[in-house]
Amino acid sequence: MSKLLIVGTVAFDAIETPFGKTDKILGGAATYIGLSASQFGIESGIVSVVGGDFPKEYLDMLNAKNIDTTGIEIIKEGKTFFWSGKYHNDMNSRDTLVTELNVLEHFNPIVPKKFKDSGIVMLGNLHPSVQSAVLDQMTTKPKLVVLDTMNFWMDIALPALKEVIKRVDVITINDEEARQLSGEYSLVNAAVKIHEMGPKYVVIKKGEHGALLFNEGNMFYAPALPLAEVFDPTGAGDTFAGGFTGYLAKTEDISFNNMKNAVIYGSNLASFCVEKFGTERMVDLSKAEVERRLHQFKQLTQFEIELM
Amino acid sequence: MSKLLIVGTVAFDAIETPFGKTDKILGGAATYIGLSASQFGIESGIVSVVGGDFPKEYLDMLNAKNIDTTGIEIIKEGKTFFWSGKYHNDMNSRDTLVTELNVLEHFNPIVPKKFKDSGIVMLGNLHPSVQSAVLDQMTTKPKLVVLDTMNFWMDIALPALKEVIKRVDVITINDEEARQLSGEYSLVNAAVKIHEMGPKYVVIKKGEHGALLFNEGNMFYAPALPLAEVFDPTGAGDTFAGGFTGYLAKTEDISFNNMKNAVIYGSNLASFCVEKFGTERMVDLSKAEVERRLHQFKQLTQFEIELM
Repeated sequence: MSKLLIVGTVAFDAIETPFGKTDKILGGAATYIGLSASQFGIESGIVSVVGGDFPKEYLDMLNAKNIDTTGIEIIKEGKTFFWSGKYHNDMNSRDTLVTELNVLEHFNPIVPKKFKDSGIVMLGNLHPSVQSAVLDQMTTKPKLVVLDTMNFWMDIALPALKEVIKRVDVITINDEEARQLSGEYSLVNAAVKIHEMGPKYVVIKKGEHGALLFNEGNMFYAPALPLAEVFDPTGAGDTFAGGFTGYLAKTEDISFNNMKNAVIYGSNLASFCVEKFGTERMVDLSKAEVERRLHQFKQLTQFEIELM
Repeated sequence: MSKLLIVGTVAFDAIETPFGKTDKILGGAATYIGLSASQFGIESGIVSVVGGDFPKEYLDMLNAKNIDTTGIEIIKEGKTFFWSGKYHNDMNSRDTLVTELNVLEHFNPIVPKKFKDSGIVMLGNLHPSVQSAVLDQMTTKPKLVVLDTMNFWMDIALPALKEVIKRVDVITINDEEARQLSGEYSLVNAAVKIHEMGPKYVVIKKGEHGALLFNEGNMFYAPALPLAEVFDPTGAGDTFAGGFTGYLAKTEDISFNNMKNAVIYGSNLASFCVEKFGTERMVDLSKAEVERRLHQFKQLTQFEIELM
């Protein structure tokens, strides 16, 4: 079992979907990643920043799931990062209504001493300089560094993004972002180009169409579980990343074959995340439910074919 | 081994993609279905109609692949159905430039005597009344009837389409068409509604995102093989249907488990179809190539997971 260090936002979200809307609820990439990874009973810690308005009960909830929050700086006089968005009817696109960076604007990540030797580091979507600053603080070279990012950083901080991408083993990115970063339309070609930028493994997330894992000519595909209803897609990508890294922290096997399993667990956990608003479904999720869904994933994808 | 009866267009296509354009080349749903199914070394026959302008060498080529063409009526004074289309840069959408129905306008399908007891009937995309007329001529109830259709018939002949849908075991349809036919956005819900219209099995084709097979609560997902380059998507859906029905005709096992294999073979064969213009890749395709690609599909989808 490896320790998992998670860097990312801990935030308030207000979400509107065709099914309803929420007031400010718990959100943030690191929150989703942590909750998802906690399913594997590992030791994890979050590095982030919140304001004095952030309820202690949220931190208590994370602690109760064995997620260390000593790396979440609390700036008493500041306000927590707030994002608000509205999903369109197809749930595949959304408008951002509000982004208040607040305490995130001058975030200086401090990795707690006990997580400086983490075996696995998950760099959640944040400014690439913040992601780099976390890697600089590691005293032991991690077994695996995974980076998530988004088009926003490609638009405004591409050189810094390319610097941190050089330093990671795995990048997770969605299909449109992979196309933007590589300049290639075909995802196969995009993965080759991104591979050349540094990461040995490239995970391309396609939302309801699943995720592709690429590694030096090898490809693996994990579908998303087809659902009758997607209630709220917020956090699905981060939940995927949490399942992926949590499983690898648990198994300590970073071979391509085991990474296939990690991608399946990522899809598995993401399929729960979208069933309710925000983190609601993830907070109560039981191991038995995850195992039952793993069985569904096997039914969905495994076949026994004989040659013609 | 069951006989496979194929009904559909045999046509001329002129295709333009970002990679180039063709003059009138061999096309048509039944052509693609037949070529794809011929990989399984089965006995198949096409019911269709062409004009006096249709080259005998095309019929010879089909015959050489054990595809019976006695059901392809030749109207000497008529012209063969002609379709011309231009694909956009993303290859996922196209504009139809020309549709000349010609001999197809008054097509009266005649099933040759030796195919009236076919075990498997593949009703390619055509006017639903033509599809029904073929079923009316069967003297023995087929083991399996598979129907392909498109939004065009939903727009102009919905009652006739619903009549023939009642009579089939499997429907293959793309995602947008499934939504239109069912009035449901979620594909899971769409499959339930279409299931209620008659077919025990619903196959929803999602192009580059693969295909879903639904049957009474069971789901199976076959990805499309991620390709560096999609040269020409024309005929991919029909090639999928040909692989699906050809494999079932060969194995004579219409259980859900074996239908999973059929869907994989459909995806397998479709992945070749798009590599060259029109039917070019399918005409020369070898069994060894198909078997190698089956291995790639296994690498792409199969995993061995242990519970947490």
